Amino acid sequence: MKLYDFAPFPNPRRVRMFLAEKGVEVPIEQINVLKGEHRTDTYKAKNPNATVPCLGLDDDSYISGCVAISRYFEATNPKPALMGGTPAEQANVSMWQRRVEEGLMDASVAYFHHATPGLGELELYQNKDWGMKNHERTIATVKTLDAELADKKFIVGDDFSIADITALCAIDFAVFAEIVSVDDYPNVKRWHDDVSARDSAKA
Amino acid sequence: MKLYDFAPFPNPRRVRMFLAEKGVEVPIEQINVLKGEHRTDTYKAKNPNATVPCLGLDDDSYISGCVAISRYFEATNPKPALMGGTPAEQANVSMWQRRVEEGLMDASVAYFHHATPGLGELELYQNKDWGMKNHERTIATVKTLDAELADKKFIVGDDFSIADITALCAIDFAVFAEIVSVDDYPNVKRWHDDVSARDSAKA
Repeated sequence: MKLYDFAPFPNPRRVRMFLAEKGVEVPIEQINVLKGEHRTDTYKAKNPNATVPCLGLDDDSYISGCVAISRYFEATNPKPALMGGTPAEQANVSMWQRRVEEGLMDASVAYFHHATPGLGELELYQNKDWGMKNHERTIATVKTLDAELADKKFIVGDDFSIADITALCAIDFAVFAEIVSVDDYPNVKRWHDDVSARDSAKA
Repeated sequence: MKLYDFAPFPNPRRVRMFLAEKGVEVPIEQINVLKGEHRTDTYKAKNPNATVPCLGLDDDSYISGCVAISRYFEATNPKPALMGGTPAEQANVSMWQRRVEEGLMDASVAYFHHATPGLGELELYQNKDWGMKNHERTIATVKTLDAELADKKFIVGDDFSIADITALCAIDFAVFAEIVSVDDYPNVKRWHDDVSARDSAKA
């Protein structure tokens, strides 16, 4: 088994953090996206979408996408549950994971790619207006999250979940991209301090 | 329990089809999006994102998003499994579901909203260039799927899954939006005929 990672990027961090919460160690290989290593034929044979992270299984099959990889480890290492326990909890975690993935992670990454110099020559198509629309969307989602966290410890309630992982990695990226400052959102700030203090946040 | 649906739209169809495959019946209420019924305060109290589908549970909590709602019923009604059995199968289904959701459903819907008259006055922001980029992306994903289906019965292999449901609803929408014709992709055509013949496809 091997995890293909690129340490500086926000999406691969989600999987490293998920693994750290589970206490699972997997051999890691860095794919330097800034040097175009994700677009070699060797890597695209593993993941035709040319994205990191990607998980190579022992039967030479490959799983790409943060939720799909996390799902694998949720099934092989059920404790602690990071994708919910009861049917309603599982559905809630899935709903919130997707909401923060779409409204924070995908939106802030879209802003970065389309309305800033982004990855430069690696991503030539840019659409500045779309980027700015996603800047707006990121801020709107942080506001929603701030209201939601007023009376909840974690995003789905009392239990830490993959939704917190996605949101932390996304918000740290949105701060890096200078879209938001967590200091402007008191409930997000309290949650962010709390989640950032976990060992897994350094993974 | 109640499912908030809008029968003509492609995303709510995913959940109806999932339920039909499970043999689960849930009371349904239509939310007429074309008449703006998704934006009433009553509906937004259930789903602040103002999207359909949404599932109301008996404790007055609400789950929105197709995968989250499907996850609820996968947990309450595990047979037949539509989200995979073994850990690797679960990961594969999650990966492919997301690939077709992003590359076919979200892309063809983005084309429709941004580069056609779309929903008219209901969605005022349009970005034609972004719409055309998503037109390209839809076609690229159908091509990938056609190659993938050359030696597979269903998208993840021998077993029908939620990935097939998402892909069918997305491709039927992409055909409606005149982005693609399934006749141009022989393996997709064979799979599409096969999946469209299931009783659940009429749900």
